[in-house]
Amino acid sequence: MERYRIGLIPGPVRIPEEIKRIWLNDYASPDIEDEFFTLYHEDQILIRRLLNTKNDIIITLGEAMSVLWAALKSTLKQGDRMLAVSSGLFGDGFAEMSRAFGVNAEVCSFPYDEIPDPEKVREHALKFRPKVITAVHCETPSGTLTTCLHEIGKIAREVDALFVVDFVSSAGGAFLDVDYYNIDIGLLGSQKVLSLPPSLSISSISERAWEIIEKVKYSGYEAYSGWKNVPSEHLTPYTHDWNAVKALNISLNMILSEGLENVFKRHENTAKLCRSLGREIGLKLYPKSEDICSPTVTAFYVPEKFTWPEFDSRLREKGLAVGGNYGILSGKVFRIGHMGSQADCELISEAMNIIRELC
Amino acid sequence: MERYRIGLIPGPVRIPEEIKRIWLNDYASPDIEDEFFTLYHEDQILIRRLLNTKNDIIITLGEAMSVLWAALKSTLKQGDRMLAVSSGLFGDGFAEMSRAFGVNAEVCSFPYDEIPDPEKVREHALKFRPKVITAVHCETPSGTLTTCLHEIGKIAREVDALFVVDFVSSAGGAFLDVDYYNIDIGLLGSQKVLSLPPSLSISSISERAWEIIEKVKYSGYEAYSGWKNVPSEHLTPYTHDWNAVKALNISLNMILSEGLENVFKRHENTAKLCRSLGREIGLKLYPKSEDICSPTVTAFYVPEKFTWPEFDSRLREKGLAVGGNYGILSGKVFRIGHMGSQADCELISEAMNIIRELC
Repeated sequence: MERYRIGLIPGPVRIPEEIKRIWLNDYASPDIEDEFFTLYHEDQILIRRLLNTKNDIIITLGEAMSVLWAALKSTLKQGDRMLAVSSGLFGDGFAEMSRAFGVNAEVCSFPYDEIPDPEKVREHALKFRPKVITAVHCETPSGTLTTCLHEIGKIAREVDALFVVDFVSSAGGAFLDVDYYNIDIGLLGSQKVLSLPPSLSISSISERAWEIIEKVKYSGYEAYSGWKNVPSEHLTPYTHDWNAVKALNISLNMILSEGLENVFKRHENTAKLCRSLGREIGLKLYPKSEDICSPTVTAFYVPEKFTWPEFDSRLREKGLAVGGNYGILSGKVFRIGHMGSQADCELISEAMNIIRELC
Repeated sequence: MERYRIGLIPGPVRIPEEIKRIWLNDYASPDIEDEFFTLYHEDQILIRRLLNTKNDIIITLGEAMSVLWAALKSTLKQGDRMLAVSSGLFGDGFAEMSRAFGVNAEVCSFPYDEIPDPEKVREHALKFRPKVITAVHCETPSGTLTTCLHEIGKIAREVDALFVVDFVSSAGGAFLDVDYYNIDIGLLGSQKVLSLPPSLSISSISERAWEIIEKVKYSGYEAYSGWKNVPSEHLTPYTHDWNAVKALNISLNMILSEGLENVFKRHENTAKLCRSLGREIGLKLYPKSEDICSPTVTAFYVPEKFTWPEFDSRLREKGLAVGGNYGILSGKVFRIGHMGSQADCELISEAMNIIRELC
């Protein structure tokens, strides 16, 4: 369907009215106007607050996959070693992407319904001595939250590796402390908690990361070089999107004026409600324990009496859209996305009532 | 300034109201809905009409630079030979970008105020035997239109090279026949004639190009692989932007219902008016002859009595924004962008009146 009555896909999420209206504005050329660079800089400051970091923030044009590629290609060369800490599809993806350009990638692998065990990561890292360690904060397909980023970050420092973290579907909806976790490159997309269209990507980049980036000297659309001093140089490597950068500003201000703690609580409360209503209905949670469930997305097994296509079409008949799955989880596990504009207890109650009628 | 009263920057151009309103809509997830793939396919068909081609069309997320990189990285490997036919900044850029990833690039170079001479291109190509020949249809910084794409395309076939053309700032505003010109990969951005935000890029890809792309097997954000069969596979390599793909649909329908011939005439008439009013005022055209002037952008020398910053700020005081320049043209040549929504004789008259008052 083209529009959802009750949309609970785990991204792209519904765009709030205040944000959509930004596209009605006329803006000048972002290539040359001071006001654009002032706005970009304001967004950088707001994102630093969102992520708890003093690191550089860069805002680029492209879907979130663009910064996943950017982080790998800007820091790794053919033959370099990278370790992908993985308990899910996106964790594994980092290794596959790295191998595609000749990197020696190993996976420190954990079951998809669990989260990484730092002790095993440490052993693997000490033996393999990677240049880069990657991790995923929220594994959207599994509905898990890697709560041990701080421990993995410490290990990265111990072996002198850069720590690259995909927090595409958690940042803003779950507590995150980029500096405390020692995250050298943090990656965020716009269509999840920020509730924007999927055309912007955000990276936080530490000084340690910039040193490597400047040595690797990668050139390409997603290259980080050229982005280090955008506000002071008044120059971007390509024409930026003023509407999108303004919409990001509105979104960040909405989140920060609600209060980060309140936004986290709203996500946590919605997730808790989703899990408890699921339990009442008899749905089986996919993650092994409630402690590792993400506040932004909940993954349940598809009820046994249905195939996924049957279940999906029955829900859709009643106007409810939830997320299916990919890879080994395809057909087995479905997801309820309650991030950003969809972190809303009423929406979840309404959705779970529809599921209850079917189960 | 944040908004222009009279905006004549050569892209991003003013977005028409009908297009801006698309962002008020709620759309579902482009990852899973049949309606999205139907819309994407409809856009492909409309773009084929715009470009006069039967080739594949792919629509990706990112500024136009993303497809310039895509075309080079998807067809060239380290050590391969490429020939950049260049009479401007973007022509030269193709060679610089290729060298950045180890390609053996040569430039068949012409003055920026002229266009390429096919005879010299032929000589160079026969000697160098490149795998890829690049050209630029409209050199936006110089305001020139390469009117000999057909001849260069024939040379590319003669030496069995792929022919890659940047028509970012001309397609839709100037006659273009991708199939007749033998263009294997054609590159288009959204913020020029299409009058959209700069978040979409479009590539036309021939079967010959796909064969090379499949051999080169480039992986990265801008990689073409994964895009060949989007509508039939119902799969994109990352989450697409439904609003933008719908806005593109509105834009293409606006152009095609006005009639391509009429749209070309509107651009040509606006450009002619701009040049003749410029002549009246005493402005000196940058291109050596009127025959090679682009219908989408006009480049004049900055009047001798002003420095560019003075001239620019005097025009801005009166609400008029025109384009400055880059590289060797910086400070010397300014541009009036009359493409897409700005191909409007009234707008040009108003702008030239303001310039007349100053000169």
